Amino acid sequence: MTDSINRVVLAYSGGLDTSVILKWLQQTYKCEVVTFTADLGQGEELEPARKKAEAAGVKPEHIFIDDLREEFVKDYVFPMMRANALYEGLYLLGTSIARPLIAKRQIEIARMLNADAVSHGATGKGNDQVRFELGYYALAPDIKVIAPWREWDLTSRTKLIEFAEQHQIPVSKDKRGEAPFSTDANMLHTSSEGKVLEDPWDEVPDYVYSRTVNPEDAPNEPEVITIDFEGGDGVAINGVGMSPATLLETLNEMGRRHGIGRLDLVENRFVGMKSRGMYETPGGTIYHLAHRGIEQLTLDRGAAHLKDELAPRYAELIYNGFWFSPEREMLQAAIDHSQTKVTGTVRLKLYKGNVSVTGRKSPFSLYSEKVVTFEDDQGAYDQRDAAGFIKLQALRLRLLGRRDQG
Amino acid sequence: MTDSINRVVLAYSGGLDTSVILKWLQQTYKCEVVTFTADLGQGEELEPARKKAEAAGVKPEHIFIDDLREEFVKDYVFPMMRANALYEGLYLLGTSIARPLIAKRQIEIARMLNADAVSHGATGKGNDQVRFELGYYALAPDIKVIAPWREWDLTSRTKLIEFAEQHQIPVSKDKRGEAPFSTDANMLHTSSEGKVLEDPWDEVPDYVYSRTVNPEDAPNEPEVITIDFEGGDGVAINGVGMSPATLLETLNEMGRRHGIGRLDLVENRFVGMKSRGMYETPGGTIYHLAHRGIEQLTLDRGAAHLKDELAPRYAELIYNGFWFSPEREMLQAAIDHSQTKVTGTVRLKLYKGNVSVTGRKSPFSLYSEKVVTFEDDQGAYDQRDAAGFIKLQALRLRLLGRRDQG
Amino acid sequence: MTDSINRVVLAYSGGLDTSVILKWLQQTYKCEVVTFTADLGQGEELEPARKKAEAAGVKPEHIFIDDLREEFVKDYVFPMMRANALYEGLYLLGTSIARPLIAKRQIEIARMLNADAVSHGATGKGNDQVRFELGYYALAPDIKVIAPWREWDLTSRTKLIEFAEQHQIPVSKDKRGEAPFSTDANMLHTSSEGKVLEDPWDEVPDYVYSRTVNPEDAPNEPEVITIDFEGGDGVAINGVGMSPATLLETLNEMGRRHGIGRLDLVENRFVGMKSRGMYETPGGTIYHLAHRGIEQLTLDRGAAHLKDELAPRYAELIYNGFWFSPEREMLQAAIDHSQTKVTGTVRLKLYKGNVSVTGRKSPFSLYSEKVVTFEDDQGAYDQRDAAGFIKLQALRLRLLGRRDQG
Amino acid sequence: MTDSINRVVLAYSGGLDTSVILKWLQQTYKCEVVTFTADLGQGEELEPARKKAEAAGVKPEHIFIDDLREEFVKDYVFPMMRANALYEGLYLLGTSIARPLIAKRQIEIARMLNADAVSHGATGKGNDQVRFELGYYALAPDIKVIAPWREWDLTSRTKLIEFAEQHQIPVSKDKRGEAPFSTDANMLHTSSEGKVLEDPWDEVPDYVYSRTVNPEDAPNEPEVITIDFEGGDGVAINGVGMSPATLLETLNEMGRRHGIGRLDLVENRFVGMKSRGMYETPGGTIYHLAHRGIEQLTLDRGAAHLKDELAPRYAELIYNGFWFSPEREMLQAAIDHSQTKVTGTVRLKLYKGNVSVTGRKSPFSLYSEKVVTFEDDQGAYDQRDAAGFIKLQALRLRLLGRRDQG
Repeated sequence: MTDSINRVVLAYSGGLDTSVILKWLQQTYKCEVVTFTADLGQGEELEPARKKAEAAGVKPEHIFIDDLREEFVKDYVFPMMRANALYEGLYLLGTSIARPLIAKRQIEIARMLNADAVSHGATGKGNDQVRFELGYYALAPDIKVIAPWREWDLTSRTKLIEFAEQHQIPVSKDKRGEAPFSTDANMLHTSSEGKVLEDPWDEVPDYVYSRTVNPEDAPNEPEVITIDFEGGDGVAINGVGMSPATLLETLNEMGRRHGIGRLDLVENRFVGMKSRGMYETPGGTIYHLAHRGIEQLTLDRGAAHLKDELAPRYAELIYNGFWFSPEREMLQAAIDHSQTKVTGTVRLKLYKGNVSVTGRKSPFSLYSEKVVTFEDDQGAYDQRDAAGFIKLQALRLRLLGRRDQG
Repeated sequence: MTDSINRVVLAYSGGLDTSVILKWLQQTYKCEVVTFTADLGQGEELEPARKKAEAAGVKPEHIFIDDLREEFVKDYVFPMMRANALYEGLYLLGTSIARPLIAKRQIEIARMLNADAVSHGATGKGNDQVRFELGYYALAPDIKVIAPWREWDLTSRTKLIEFAEQHQIPVSKDKRGEAPFSTDANMLHTSSEGKVLEDPWDEVPDYVYSRTVNPEDAPNEPEVITIDFEGGDGVAINGVGMSPATLLETLNEMGRRHGIGRLDLVENRFVGMKSRGMYETPGGTIYHLAHRGIEQLTLDRGAAHLKDELAPRYAELIYNGFWFSPEREMLQAAIDHSQTKVTGTVRLKLYKGNVSVTGRKSPFSLYSEKVVTFEDDQGAYDQRDAAGFIKLQALRLRLLGRRDQG
Repeated sequence: MTDSINRVVLAYSGGLDTSVILKWLQQTYKCEVVTFTADLGQGEELEPARKKAEAAGVKPEHIFIDDLREEFVKDYVFPMMRANALYEGLYLLGTSIARPLIAKRQIEIARMLNADAVSHGATGKGNDQVRFELGYYALAPDIKVIAPWREWDLTSRTKLIEFAEQHQIPVSKDKRGEAPFSTDANMLHTSSEGKVLEDPWDEVPDYVYSRTVNPEDAPNEPEVITIDFEGGDGVAINGVGMSPATLLETLNEMGRRHGIGRLDLVENRFVGMKSRGMYETPGGTIYHLAHRGIEQLTLDRGAAHLKDELAPRYAELIYNGFWFSPEREMLQAAIDHSQTKVTGTVRLKLYKGNVSVTGRKSPFSLYSEKVVTFEDDQGAYDQRDAAGFIKLQALRLRLLGRRDQG
Repeated sequence: MTDSINRVVLAYSGGLDTSVILKWLQQTYKCEVVTFTADLGQGEELEPARKKAEAAGVKPEHIFIDDLREEFVKDYVFPMMRANALYEGLYLLGTSIARPLIAKRQIEIARMLNADAVSHGATGKGNDQVRFELGYYALAPDIKVIAPWREWDLTSRTKLIEFAEQHQIPVSKDKRGEAPFSTDANMLHTSSEGKVLEDPWDEVPDYVYSRTVNPEDAPNEPEVITIDFEGGDGVAINGVGMSPATLLETLNEMGRRHGIGRLDLVENRFVGMKSRGMYETPGGTIYHLAHRGIEQLTLDRGAAHLKDELAPRYAELIYNGFWFSPEREMLQAAIDHSQTKVTGTVRLKLYKGNVSVTGRKSPFSLYSEKVVTFEDDQGAYDQRDAAGFIKLQALRLRLLGRRDQG
């Protein structure tokens, strides 16, 4: 497996695992390692990663710490939200949607520096390895991919820590014991899985939650907010215009306060097993519902129902790592075509874990009070048309009934 | 339109509108009217309907008041819930699913009594006329259908009340003024629409809600419950076995108490217009989520994802009135095939409008802690397999990338 | 129904039926009639229509005879062919795809001349009335639509001819008797239905065919041709560049000669009944297969399979008259996104009713002889990857098997 | 890789490759080999396989030669044909549908003899390895699977033949040189691929075809036949009742004579590459079209269109090897539900490569001449209903048009 590698770009968090990987790559492949640390709004200090990379011998010009927050929300989260995508009916795809952007940036750096390989710290049982690597291969078909967790012999935490200590990699105290669960975070969500979460009958312990207050501890007063949309994307909260990332951050803070967006899920991984996870998606949960709310008013039924039928497939593609695929792009083209007039304002109420749409208005509303009214509609709709409509809808069923009930 | 009719079976609630229809049918068609009043758990006294029908001259043996509650839940609500059906992503189809059963029973009575026509009180702008009539025609292709709201000249409430008074139909005080909204209720839900709800920007007024407390007034303590499923259907609550209708009623009471299942929606009617409604589905909302919870553990991914892709179409068919259609039955056959081992227990927490799954277990669980664990899995899963899996998943993307990025 | 109409644009063929309609409109609505005759390559002389319209009193500047052949093929037939659309698995939608263009042009003329109505000669049992009128309403929501066949009392051919004779409308001899079937033609196809075709067990008589020779009379020698595609559309035959309409005409002539494209079909109409028709689509049949041939080489699997799943819906939308609908446009956006590199050459053999692809090549081929070869592929594909691929594909089935076969 | 194996059941054709595998398994795994040879109508003598297996030391009671022809057609080909399944729009899945049956029988034998492993001769680049192994794992989750082509070092034909000669395996003369292409055959089809077929621009040479005459050499006279269907399956030809296998054989002979069912295809393999193959499916091509013909008359539109939308997915599942999966079974349940009244007679014309439906009749026909007729229908259909039907179909488009064109 130790093909000759000259330079590898590693998706580097600065944590223990990727620090071990950094050293292991240098040792195993005798190659130069370039570190890339993405700020996707995970809410951690990233500068320490620079120090650690330098300490591991990475050249300063080979250390990349990039703020990708606006790109993440604008080009990944928002397009996905246009689809109302939910994996298995419930999951807002917070981890899945971050991977393609990381992969894309890694490949850009690899191209820039003539690196011949990329590497990541995802394990061999999960979805993330697939998402990273499908992204790499789609964007750079001949890149070499190193997945240390599938290759090395550091198969227990004890061995990992031994390796760290042998190589002067600092091991913080809380990493010495077994962590009771593992997490992934970005601006859209925090996911938690493993260990204490492994029995799907056991309730998620309180200490696992990090992004939202317990609904029971949330304010006793509801908060009413508005979100403005233009062309399918959020542009303002409570009338204040905001960039995509600022808007999502603002919703995150609101959601956190009101205990919104917790999800305990048993899901089907692409690699064929079920896993149990807990997700916190405070702002995304609010945004998702608000987007549906504005679509209710501005999308034609034909467009809306087609979107609903395509959404499970679209969500599955993102979950499985096929963001950079022709079929995801085809579906995106269809979805985006529907969004040009998804513009207007949604009012929502946030209260102890609930988010509810309580009103929506739009300059492009397709709702016609004149047509729908119980009052006299002055000829906007001729009720007699319904007779013919039903008669022809029924015709095939009547022919069938005559055959089968004669 | 006044074809010669001998006997007509009317879906009769005993309310003002269908009482006027009863009389109007007698007058207009010079025919015998048979009344059929279904108990679908709408929570009203039905015996007064008998008195009123008698007073209108209906023969005692032509007055049918049938308790259809168990049939409704067992043969309509539960099969629909197996599909996780949501219309336009959010609506649990409470009105839609009741109509086919009413239509079916009306036709049975018509057959029994040799009636040549059926009639209903649904208006010409709504979905219910379609649902009733498609049911009638599918089950009795040559039946005559009388839809008074599309035929008569009682086009204003004033005229309707005048007609009632001329014909000694009692008009209760609260019916004299305009009702501020109209409702439909059965065991699954109560829907409200019209008048004060017609502007989709206006918040639903408090007095519109009738089936649930305001989440803000719900208990400050969460309630934890369990639901047991067998073969895809609920069979017990908190370990106590119950019939389908009793189970749904029990969940309704729990949901009511905790303010669960309110939905403010702008939806697309089959007849081509948007309408705004408010739904309260307390027990159904809990049940829907619980069913998803037990499926998470017991359904294979292939089955689960196929179900998710078929569900929007299935929901649309029910919404549009095609319960008695070959395509709904085909989808039902597929869905039911998946449910044989959807058996086990789901634990849920109810709290101020929220319902959350907090645990699930099953004798038929497909979740394997042994495979998924972060710990040593003793060979249950070979991480190296993932490399080959990804390589072949990526192959087509690499060939594509070589072509398009060369 | 005789609302006040000032000016109506009639889709006018110059034949007996639309000549009667012209006169009937003038009489019934006391309005000015504008005639519009479209050249869609139906292969008839259109100038006689001008004479007849003039004779009926239509002002010269109100007679429109437009050559729409290039627009028809380029903006309607080709986009549809990109989707490989087949209605009910077999029908190439020759009539359906012409209607939206006629409707669009009628509305343009109506706008230009401030006409307040449009009219067409389609009957009340068919699909074409729906296609015309959905087009009209989508493009001009407040236009008035006059469908004489649903309104007038000329309900038998005898009455129609009487009306014609009363109004000096020439009735050619062959129109006096009952035609043994009725036809519709344009550059893509000729359809025939009715009378002698009404029993679906009876073979279509020879005299019904007009666009193709009987395969048994076709040349004994096959003809080999090539079609070049660029971006999903045909651009050349046998290496000779051609405009869309010329290309289709050329294929029509080839198909006609070799007896290609006959189809005897029982289909489901949108209005709820089955009908039996016979279609001749000589050039379209060749083109359809050629397009599939070039896609085989240049489309990625993900794109190709998504297209195959969307195609039945897309075809149904066109058949039902929803060309000008958001959902058709969304699907078109997805389909068109896939076509950018559908470029190359297909070789086909035409022989006595058969058309077969015998070769295809492309500068954007995704076919890799190096990868697929039975010979040594020098590492282009590692067969061991397949083991991991299968293992993970099988994982869920094994977990299922352990549960269900234990 | 040489886990300890006691007894392995090999899918054994008696040809050179599986004879080498037989010996290699004995040598490599020091285990007992059980041979299983299936008669699926591939048209080869199978008894020689017994001799060869005996010569290789297989115990007589461990040699299985089973005639599976009726089971193959009845339980695999016919159910698939009910779906009108075509992979990538054209391919009738002849190889794909045979693999699950072979896998199932292998597992039955393994169970019966307490064998702990199964083995097959499919290569590491193709689809068949996946189909075999997914079948094995689904039916026996803990079975060991040996895929010699992915394991051994006999990576060239020279080495294979050397091995054969070292082990007294007879090598027929024509196997010494490189075969110009490779084939797979069963009662449904013969497929050919590789070598001379590898350039998708090169025409398939005449000598590759083995199951059909060249259309140019077929009879100059068409042959007209009938097929009777009951409940979706063929039961008689020309009025003569036949078992499933006899019926398919009879159609094969007819198709062969008339040059029917040749297909030159570039397809997308599940393992991610494109391949070029040539298929001959004489009887299946006739049967497929006949089944569509009888469905045209007997299937309701709702059922027919749902089937058309599901068919590409269903075909993909079979192609990819997921016959024994919950999702294939769910789709089958839906499809089978639609077939109960797909009963009647189809007349077809066979002529020089063409097969055309020329008539169909059924006791369960949904076609109503009375409704569809151009003549006076005596009130079977009220044309005025169409006005209302169109008006309500158009309503949403008009609301949209008013918004977007105002």
